[in-house]
Amino acid sequence: MDTNNINSEDASGIENAQKAVFTISEELPTSQVVKGYDFSHGLDYKKLLESYMTTGFQATNYARAVDIINNMLNWRLSEDLEFQAQNADKMDLTNPTRERTKIFLGYTSNLISSGLRENFLYLVKNRMVNVLVTTAGGIEEDFIKCLSHTYLGEFSLDGSDLRKRGLNRIGNLLAPNNNYRKFEDWIMPIFDAMLDEQKKGTLWTPSKVIHRLGKEINDPNSVYYWAYKNDIPVYCPAFTDGSIGDMLYFHSYKSPGLVIDIVSDIRAINNEAVYASKTGIIILGGGSMKHHICNANLMRNGAEYAVYINTGQEFDGSDAGARPDEAVSWGKIKPTAQSVKIYSDATLVFPLLVSQTFCVNNSFK
Amino acid sequence: MDTNNINSEDASGIENAQKAVFTISEELPTSQVVKGYDFSHGLDYKKLLESYMTTGFQATNYARAVDIINNMLNWRLSEDLEFQAQNADKMDLTNPTRERTKIFLGYTSNLISSGLRENFLYLVKNRMVNVLVTTAGGIEEDFIKCLSHTYLGEFSLDGSDLRKRGLNRIGNLLAPNNNYRKFEDWIMPIFDAMLDEQKKGTLWTPSKVIHRLGKEINDPNSVYYWAYKNDIPVYCPAFTDGSIGDMLYFHSYKSPGLVIDIVSDIRAINNEAVYASKTGIIILGGGSMKHHICNANLMRNGAEYAVYINTGQEFDGSDAGARPDEAVSWGKIKPTAQSVKIYSDATLVFPLLVSQTFCVNNSFK
Amino acid sequence: MDTNNINSEDASGIENAQKAVFTISEELPTSQVVKGYDFSHGLDYKKLLESYMTTGFQATNYARAVDIINNMLNWRLSEDLEFQAQNADKMDLTNPTRERTKIFLGYTSNLISSGLRENFLYLVKNRMVNVLVTTAGGIEEDFIKCLSHTYLGEFSLDGSDLRKRGLNRIGNLLAPNNNYRKFEDWIMPIFDAMLDEQKKGTLWTPSKVIHRLGKEINDPNSVYYWAYKNDIPVYCPAFTDGSIGDMLYFHSYKSPGLVIDIVSDIRAINNEAVYASKTGIIILGGGSMKHHICNANLMRNGAEYAVYINTGQEFDGSDAGARPDEAVSWGKIKPTAQSVKIYSDATLVFPLLVSQTFCVNNSFK
Amino acid sequence: MDTNNINSEDASGIENAQKAVFTISEELPTSQVVKGYDFSHGLDYKKLLESYMTTGFQATNYARAVDIINNMLNWRLSEDLEFQAQNADKMDLTNPTRERTKIFLGYTSNLISSGLRENFLYLVKNRMVNVLVTTAGGIEEDFIKCLSHTYLGEFSLDGSDLRKRGLNRIGNLLAPNNNYRKFEDWIMPIFDAMLDEQKKGTLWTPSKVIHRLGKEINDPNSVYYWAYKNDIPVYCPAFTDGSIGDMLYFHSYKSPGLVIDIVSDIRAINNEAVYASKTGIIILGGGSMKHHICNANLMRNGAEYAVYINTGQEFDGSDAGARPDEAVSWGKIKPTAQSVKIYSDATLVFPLLVSQTFCVNNSFK
Repeated sequence: MDTNNINSEDASGIENAQKAVFTISEELPTSQVVKGYDFSHGLDYKKLLESYMTTGFQATNYARAVDIINNMLNWRLSEDLEFQAQNADKMDLTNPTRERTKIFLGYTSNLISSGLRENFLYLVKNRMVNVLVTTAGGIEEDFIKCLSHTYLGEFSLDGSDLRKRGLNRIGNLLAPNNNYRKFEDWIMPIFDAMLDEQKKGTLWTPSKVIHRLGKEINDPNSVYYWAYKNDIPVYCPAFTDGSIGDMLYFHSYKSPGLVIDIVSDIRAINNEAVYASKTGIIILGGGSMKHHICNANLMRNGAEYAVYINTGQEFDGSDAGARPDEAVSWGKIKPTAQSVKIYSDATLVFPLLVSQTFCVNNSFK
Repeated sequence: MDTNNINSEDASGIENAQKAVFTISEELPTSQVVKGYDFSHGLDYKKLLESYMTTGFQATNYARAVDIINNMLNWRLSEDLEFQAQNADKMDLTNPTRERTKIFLGYTSNLISSGLRENFLYLVKNRMVNVLVTTAGGIEEDFIKCLSHTYLGEFSLDGSDLRKRGLNRIGNLLAPNNNYRKFEDWIMPIFDAMLDEQKKGTLWTPSKVIHRLGKEINDPNSVYYWAYKNDIPVYCPAFTDGSIGDMLYFHSYKSPGLVIDIVSDIRAINNEAVYASKTGIIILGGGSMKHHICNANLMRNGAEYAVYINTGQEFDGSDAGARPDEAVSWGKIKPTAQSVKIYSDATLVFPLLVSQTFCVNNSFK
Repeated sequence: MDTNNINSEDASGIENAQKAVFTISEELPTSQVVKGYDFSHGLDYKKLLESYMTTGFQATNYARAVDIINNMLNWRLSEDLEFQAQNADKMDLTNPTRERTKIFLGYTSNLISSGLRENFLYLVKNRMVNVLVTTAGGIEEDFIKCLSHTYLGEFSLDGSDLRKRGLNRIGNLLAPNNNYRKFEDWIMPIFDAMLDEQKKGTLWTPSKVIHRLGKEINDPNSVYYWAYKNDIPVYCPAFTDGSIGDMLYFHSYKSPGLVIDIVSDIRAINNEAVYASKTGIIILGGGSMKHHICNANLMRNGAEYAVYINTGQEFDGSDAGARPDEAVSWGKIKPTAQSVKIYSDATLVFPLLVSQTFCVNNSFK
Repeated sequence: MDTNNINSEDASGIENAQKAVFTISEELPTSQVVKGYDFSHGLDYKKLLESYMTTGFQATNYARAVDIINNMLNWRLSEDLEFQAQNADKMDLTNPTRERTKIFLGYTSNLISSGLRENFLYLVKNRMVNVLVTTAGGIEEDFIKCLSHTYLGEFSLDGSDLRKRGLNRIGNLLAPNNNYRKFEDWIMPIFDAMLDEQKKGTLWTPSKVIHRLGKEINDPNSVYYWAYKNDIPVYCPAFTDGSIGDMLYFHSYKSPGLVIDIVSDIRAINNEAVYASKTGIIILGGGSMKHHICNANLMRNGAEYAVYINTGQEFDGSDAGARPDEAVSWGKIKPTAQSVKIYSDATLVFPLLVSQTFCVNNSFK
């Protein structure tokens, strides 16, 4: 530092520093005061989770997600006269009482491997969501869990050693290789039957195969059994990208000829969005299922509600890490939509989110 | 692909593929089966959070953190005869009944700005932790909240506009500039008094100043008021790096001469670790307070229990993102320690963690 | 702190602390000494990038990736007598001189939107890679760039405003909506022709459609034009998940009936891996294309070389963020393979990586 | 999906979908067209790195950082008549030719452990930066490298095994414990001398100690030797938080009484910012040194130029992950400043950044 300079400038320098530090601020409403949970009044989980709204950072985003999902659940066309008036020319209003928000739920394969599968099962069994989108692993691992188990492991287990033991690692979970042998035994005869039906005229699509597999598993512990029972469509934009693909590969040598068409499914999922009064999207994780749900909602000029939960970051320009506002620019989420992203591994927050929304909301009765 | 090659190789190729896919796996214990919370039996938050242990990914790490903290809380020298035997030559065993795990709690400035402050207040007021370490903002923002408020905002608010309005952004929180004017009015006379006492022989250190400020604030809403009342030491390795530093800067022109020594404090915090039977560390966030707690525990050849909660990653070699196992290599955490890192924004999980540990544990009575 | 305790323990406490701090260490080889680039000898980019090996953190991972890719490029079956001996029963060794490492290159859609597209073009035009895998956007945005442009923008641009202006944001890039109108004009007649050919017996698959589109674009600025010319297969496991899907949707109303089968493609990509002497995988980004390349390599019991470049993290158990070692547990990468993950946005490092590998390696001549 | 609904709505649904997909877009300037490096014209690293500006994502941010640093380096008060006119009342304009941008360079401890140390050495030796700020490790590891070496390791090395071998892990680097024994042997006599000088009236501060240590090491391989030689101040807001702290701890038993004051240093660093015509900040990593540089620049109502390079994320509200725009709200960076954050491990980009800025800029001659 130039000390001569300091000597000549001292007084004004400090004054300017004080001005910079002590600029005057405007007043903010007390409703926005940050305040966390006070344990001194005892433990009440309902209140504790409600306190997240004023806790800040991702706790606040979590609390907003609760509100948004409850808004999805509470919306009724029959009660929304403003919406009816604005859309009178565009939609069949003959039966407004049955029109609710159509909820798209998406999740990655690893979440079916995790304990969130039981949460999804609850939502599907109780018809709380309307469209499912996932990856190949998100399909097959549900069925595999009906045939065997997935186990807890460690992130740090040595890959080479696990390979020798036949244990496939999924983060800190382990999927034993025998699971896939059982899966093969189960699915190959179904593929045989499907090939027969194809010869009689059926054009298979991923969603039709999943529907069929849900029927065949015939197990109330399966998410897709209930999707089948409750006629909830399940889309899988990369259906061969998993063990199902391995089995189709082997089957193509054993009994060549099975065809699975993807054009019909893109038509079907897009129409799910196009012919809905309002849509809400809940997406856990990133990748093709995230993009697929958003892209379908572009066909309706945007979803009305959106909740993302993932750990992706936007700085590398990936769709996986993009904030809801990027989807707004594309018309995938409406500019007027309520949306939020919770930056978190979904296993930490989704069970809590269900507890404060689907679990307590009476709209399904 | 070389099709001639395929023709000649077809059969063995598929066979090898099947061998690769269907290697045999060893059996795993049913205790490790992944299973999430089943809402169909109703909502019980205690059971829901217990189900995190078998949910996988960070839910499992969360559940391990609960166990580790409860182990910290439950340990008693008087009951651990094995530990007594092994350490007979090293420690004063005259009063084993009062010896418990000494818990170091660390957190970054932004968490005092968040609603977690109320959680810390509960822990300090009830003497549930033994040593606090934080950054300058982690000190001053507690006092400032006694003088005024911090408010909810948005991550996306424009910096230039906020500057005009005198609103300082902390993630999605807002700290109005007037807060710092009030802070100056409060702290300057205390610095004057401290300078007087220095002239009479006091050598100030950061921990002594914090103790004094805790006394002066005289407000049961302050974390450091209770630290003062309960004689819980608070260390701050970068004490001038915040508004306190600004005030010391201005004070150095108004009334030059105040000295704050850091050598005495490094001696004090290291001795906190050295003269403890067992130590447990709970660190929310990264940076100097994380390193400082770990480094103090090197002085005792490692903490016995460690829980990290942060969003840092190890790939850039930063201490902030380092896993507990890096601290093991340094002797900061014992090789035999129980340790876990929860990869999460602390606001999402710390209130829950308190609810399942400190809040329900009877050891403080 | 219990001061009485300190008094009695002082000496031994400090001694123990010194023991903990000053444990003896073993010697390490000087070849591993960390040393960065010294600019005082002038600027030589070749040496600067070579210095990354001893710079540490991700610089070292980058340098390892350079070595691994060069090892991919340099391997020749004809020169690897050990490999020949070990695999004599499994492979056709009639023409060992032409057998090299088969390189699978995968990238996400956003990277075709970025300037990395020109790098991919160089690799494909010069037959430096053997199999491409990407997402729907990774296909269509290449063609769209032949019809129009993608532009620089900002991560912080407002989505609502962009929607009004018809500008779709991809990170800090902008894809004007008019691009998709031009894309429709171009692709619809091709779909019409494909439907005609289907009626004459063609069963379309994603890779066949991409091959056809590469032919139709007939533009040397297109990656897939060169893939077509050089007979490099391009797989796209989620082919309808993008603007191509939108067009197929509209086409399904205009001229219903087009079928695109995915079973044939899973057979084809798996055989790419099965019938290769050695394979190397280079994967930029995460999601289905990452999983798809790895899964195909499971069919050969693992790739011999693997380089990942992405920003994903493993803590949420996603395949996107999984380290190469997780793929080892599945048999997707060989336990003996050379593998590395560079934790980085690919745009920062891939051009440099090409400069030190494909660009300087003579093996293609 | 309600098929009756579809039947009645079909035509308008598709029309609306097409409207949503094909909204008209405004034109963008060709200067913003995304275009990457074309290797077909040969390899020219200068051009390759220049192409980063139009490559997108973090490559673009990197290129902006190059421009911003070059703008820092090129600014001269003598040439900026507009600035002179606007600040005539505030500053001593007697010697405008010597007034340049004052550059604050900050980095975390791990970067001194990495090969970036050689880059910092180059900058300090050639007086290219004006103020340094780092953590305790960022000081001591420079000296330790004069006494011994840091080595390459692996992120996955087992902590327990390393502890037995006396090897401390820093990401994928290893610092042998013997290094710290050598450090003790070197520093203890200096502390003794400092204590003697204290008794004669010296009031030590972190920056004064670092200056003294730089003199004592007397080794041209040391960053702080050159800081001493070139009179470049080095601030360390958490000076005891590292091995230096360990040594001060031991010294406090061997020869009690050394005092290190932090009030003088906060005055000094703040004045560095206050009495500068313009300031530029370059910060690698997060934590206290990042905050400290920014906070000092609040005293001048904001820096004119700012480049951050780190891997932190803003979603947890940490200062470490905050974007430059958060600092704008505080007045730490001017609203009119040029600023950018490169989301990257600094080892990947800082050597390149130096190569395109300090290394080629003639302003130091």
